[in-house]
This record gives sequence, structure tokens and C-alpha cells, in this order.
Amino acid sequence: MSDNAKIDKGLLIVYTGDGKGKTTAALGMTIRAVGYDWNVCIIQFVKGSWKYGELDGIKKLAPNVELNVMGEGFVGIIDDKKSFEQHRAAARKAYEMALGKITSGSFDLVILDELNVAISLGLISQDELEHLIKSKPEELHLVITGRGATKWLIDHADLVTEMKEIKHPFRKGILAQKGIDF
Amino acid sequence: MSDNAKIDKGLLIVYTGDGKGKTTAALGMTIRAVGYDWNVCIIQFVKGSWKYGELDGIKKLAPNVELNVMGEGFVGIIDDKKSFEQHRAAARKAYEMALGKITSGSFDLVILDELNVAISLGLISQDELEHLIKSKPEELHLVITGRGATKWLIDHADLVTEMKEIKHPFRKGILAQKGIDF
Repeated sequence: MSDNAKIDKGLLIVYTGDGKGKTTAALGMTIRAVGYDWNVCIIQFVKGSWKYGELDGIKKLAPNVELNVMGEGFVGIIDDKKSFEQHRAAARKAYEMALGKITSGSFDLVILDELNVAISLGLISQDELEHLIKSKPEELHLVITGRGATKWLIDHADLVTEMKEIKHPFRKGILAQKGIDF
Repeated sequence: MSDNAKIDKGLLIVYTGDGKGKTTAALGMTIRAVGYDWNVCIIQFVKGSWKYGELDGIKKLAPNVELNVMGEGFVGIIDDKKSFEQHRAAARKAYEMALGKITSGSFDLVILDELNVAISLGLISQDELEHLIKSKPEELHLVITGRGATKWLIDHADLVTEMKEIKHPFRKGILAQKGIDF
């Protein structure tokens, strides 16, 4: 952990809602954090198969940023070939990793991407969530993203932003865009 | 402009609302864009005096990303020592630069940060906004951030997300945080 992070209280930050920009805002925080030479760990709980832009982009922020893609792709959609148990096992692995990173003392900012979705899907339990949050050291900034943040999480967070979809190009018949959607 | 950007239609994207994460989401898009080796130009229309983390962080994304800090700090708040005319002149310069960058053919993604605020404050006119949007080449992705997006802009945008403040730490008496707020 860098020295200059120690002066602040670490916040629990939640980006939720059905609009675009939740993971993107977390990635933007990564740029700021790297500007202060902080160490950042990102763990993706539910990995979509199309978001590859950030994998390459984030590499340019090395060595400060560590990205761990842990999820097993989308759950329960048409082309989902994995069983619930496989998704649960993957989420469990991500949870164990998150716990380790949060308590390691090696990071100033930890981002648990799409954790809310993993919770909604029943891949991570409320008990596990509470244990994660309670394990957060005072000085660590912890960011949780994904639609459907639970009331418990919102109650315990310091900063919550709902990304609200006002207008989306898919509704206008425009296909997913490279660099924008993936 | 990189070749792989040409296959897509460029979107007009707006991040607005009173919640956190608007500029941050735009910065996150920058990471994705750089992952595709796109060229990105960011122009800040209204520069706060405290957001320095991103200045250093964004340098790590060079040479793909160009950041231009054009604004004159906050308008009309207590410690604002500049006249409206000085702010207007700074905004005008940012506008001319934006027009140049948008039409240059050198970029895949242009971000006009806090342009909505500059419009709300009367530093940029509706005519100027319309001219900017109409100058956007078909293939360019253009992102406009800032609270108070006008109805005209929302009507003309492809994708609009409202960042809604659900909970903010300042309300709990926690001071602005390095790496989070600046």
C-alpha cells in the first residue's frame, strides 16, 4: 500500500442501476488511483464474453493495476452452457480471492466488479457479502459494481450512485459497439 | 484514426445527473478505447482545481490519449476570482479546440468533459452546441459529460445515462477523498 493513501478513510462505494457506466466508472477510478501511484486490484465476478477492450487497456496501467477475470460468463442466458454449480464454484473462487486481496494490505483500491449480479443470481450469499464488507480494513477503498445492489449494501455504503438508463442505442436498433459495449 | 474503428457507427453518448461517476465513466471508456489502440482526445470545459489524479493517471495511457485542460475553474462559487468574461473566453477557446479535434479525423473518441455545465452556465450557447454535434463525423464516438444535459442534447444522443446520487459521504461529514473526488 502506498503511504499517501493512509491519510484518508477508505470508502465503500457502490455503482448500481440498469444504465451504462458502472464498470466504466470503476475503471475510471483506476486511472485516478494510478495517478496517485496507488495499487489497485480488480476482480470480475461475472465475466461477459465480450468485454475485451479493458483487458488490453488496463495492461497499460501496469504494474499498479492487477485485473483478475474470475467469472464464468453469463448465467442463465440462452447460450449459457455451464451449470449453476459451475457458476457457483467460479463465484466462490472469486469470493475467496476477494477476501484475500481485501485483507492483504497490498492494495489501496479494490474493485469487485459485478458482485451485485453474483449476489442477485444467488452465486454469492448475503453472509458472504457481509463477511467481505466487515473484512475491509479502515484505509482501503472498496468499490462494488453491478445492477441490483441490495438494501443492506446501500445502507452500509458511504457513496452510492445509481446509473439510470435514459436512452440506449439498442432500442434504436444499433448493434453493440466495440470500445463502447465490449 | 485507427482502421478498426471504421466498422462501427460513432455514437453520441451523454453522462449526466447529479451523482458521482460521470467524468469517471468517461475516463473508464478511455481505458477500453486504448485497449483497441484507438486515439482519444479529452477536453475539460470546466476544470475544478482538485482533480489532479487523472492528470497523472492519464499520462500512462499515452501516446493514445491527449488531455486538454481548458476551463478556468469553477464559476460563481465563493472563491471564484475570475469574471464571467474570463470564463466565457476560456470556454470559447475550449469550444474552438473541440471543433478542431472533432473534425480533425485524428481521433476515434472525443470526450467533452463538463460541457453540459458550461452550457448551463451560459458559457457555451445552444447554437454552439448544435454546431459541435452536427460537425461530428459519422464514425467518431463523442462523449459529453456534466449535470444538467439539455433536452435537445438528450433527444439527439444515442445513449444517455443519468448518474443519480443515492448516497454521498459528504452528507455523512466525510471530507473529499484523494483518488475518489480529486
